[in-house]
Amino acid sequence: MTKLVLLRHGQSEWNLSNRFTGWSDVDLNSQGVQEAHAAGQKLAAAGIDFDIAYTSLLKRAINTLHIVLKTTAHEWLPEVKTWRLNERHYGSLQGLNKTTTAEKYGTTQVQAWRRSYDVVPPLLTYDDPRAPWHDRRYYDVDPQLLPLGESLKMTLQRVLPFWSDVVVPQLRNNHNVLIVAHGNSLRALIKHIENISDEDIMQVELQTGVPVIYDITPDLVVNRKTLL
Amino acid sequence: MTKLVLLRHGQSEWNLSNRFTGWSDVDLNSQGVQEAHAAGQKLAAAGIDFDIAYTSLLKRAINTLHIVLKTTAHEWLPEVKTWRLNERHYGSLQGLNKTTTAEKYGTTQVQAWRRSYDVVPPLLTYDDPRAPWHDRRYYDVDPQLLPLGESLKMTLQRVLPFWSDVVVPQLRNNHNVLIVAHGNSLRALIKHIENISDEDIMQVELQTGVPVIYDITPDLVVNRKTLL
Repeated sequence: MTKLVLLRHGQSEWNLSNRFTGWSDVDLNSQGVQEAHAAGQKLAAAGIDFDIAYTSLLKRAINTLHIVLKTTAHEWLPEVKTWRLNERHYGSLQGLNKTTTAEKYGTTQVQAWRRSYDVVPPLLTYDDPRAPWHDRRYYDVDPQLLPLGESLKMTLQRVLPFWSDVVVPQLRNNHNVLIVAHGNSLRALIKHIENISDEDIMQVELQTGVPVIYDITPDLVVNRKTLL
Repeated sequence: MTKLVLLRHGQSEWNLSNRFTGWSDVDLNSQGVQEAHAAGQKLAAAGIDFDIAYTSLLKRAINTLHIVLKTTAHEWLPEVKTWRLNERHYGSLQGLNKTTTAEKYGTTQVQAWRRSYDVVPPLLTYDDPRAPWHDRRYYDVDPQLLPLGESLKMTLQRVLPFWSDVVVPQLRNNHNVLIVAHGNSLRALIKHIENISDEDIMQVELQTGVPVIYDITPDLVVNRKTLL
């Protein structure tokens, strides 16, 4: 049975300080590094022979992948980095503390931004220096595809082409796939893989550093889901 | 001017113990990790905006690259790993101590294996468990392409298709390229880039962790070579 493993990066500097992160390129903190090591040790013990790894363009995910590759002695594994696995873009909320934002806009509004499927956060303005097209790593992407803020629904829409065009052919070829990404880009993928409703998906919470293993058929039927 | 940077991995566990390494997948030692960090700091100070990175399928090179990416905050850089950048394959000498090998075969023979351009080391036998096709990382490579031992000349012959088909188009597009590889796979590349004779190339010695920067035109003329 082919294995698809989803792994949320270890704790980052901003997970701990309770700030909206999104596409801000924040690194792992020391606990996050430990979580990545622990995830690697669990995957090594599970003995999965991976064929390829995918990650985002954000260092908290990439560095988690690199730690896992080292821990599992899979450094040689082909790795592909794509903006389509980036975290949900949180617009102009990025960098703000979640508590002080709730004090300013009200808890109901912040809950809607954080926990509804299709509510869009306040967008970055087009000329904001934080707009993705100002960042070299996105120069090869058509600017019209790049977000200034996203709902989870929008995140799923831009993850899907990557899933269908890149990951699915690997799984159909019985290749074991490792994806190291983010709370919301993985939640979007899980919604699609498990066919979860718009309402129920918001209850799905991925823990940092805990590998989710799908045993999957070449026809993409999930036979088993395991948390390591 | 386009930048091509060649970087030999930091010191490995076997560099220090004076053993023939070749395709043995030996990791960096603590000095090697430090050398990789130092190389990253020098490259960060040089302010080179890399577009893509290439490395081998061996962890001492890959981990050097990952340390450099982290140190230069270039984690997002596309990275491609290829067996064609692997170290020269040292055949059945791999794992042997260089001094005891010289005592057994004589200094002249060992010098010929180490320092001549086209002398081939004793090959692994076809059914040797160390033959590359037994290793998962080479499953996608036609076994007829994989070596059981190589002269430097043979190393150059298998590096060249990668250079011509993959690196050259990047340089022609003015992309800054980082290659992290090995003493002999890089020596082979340098022979080709600088058009060095079969005799003179054996005097070229790359230090571990010292970036070599070529300023190169889109027509592949080297205007300047700098050691950082």
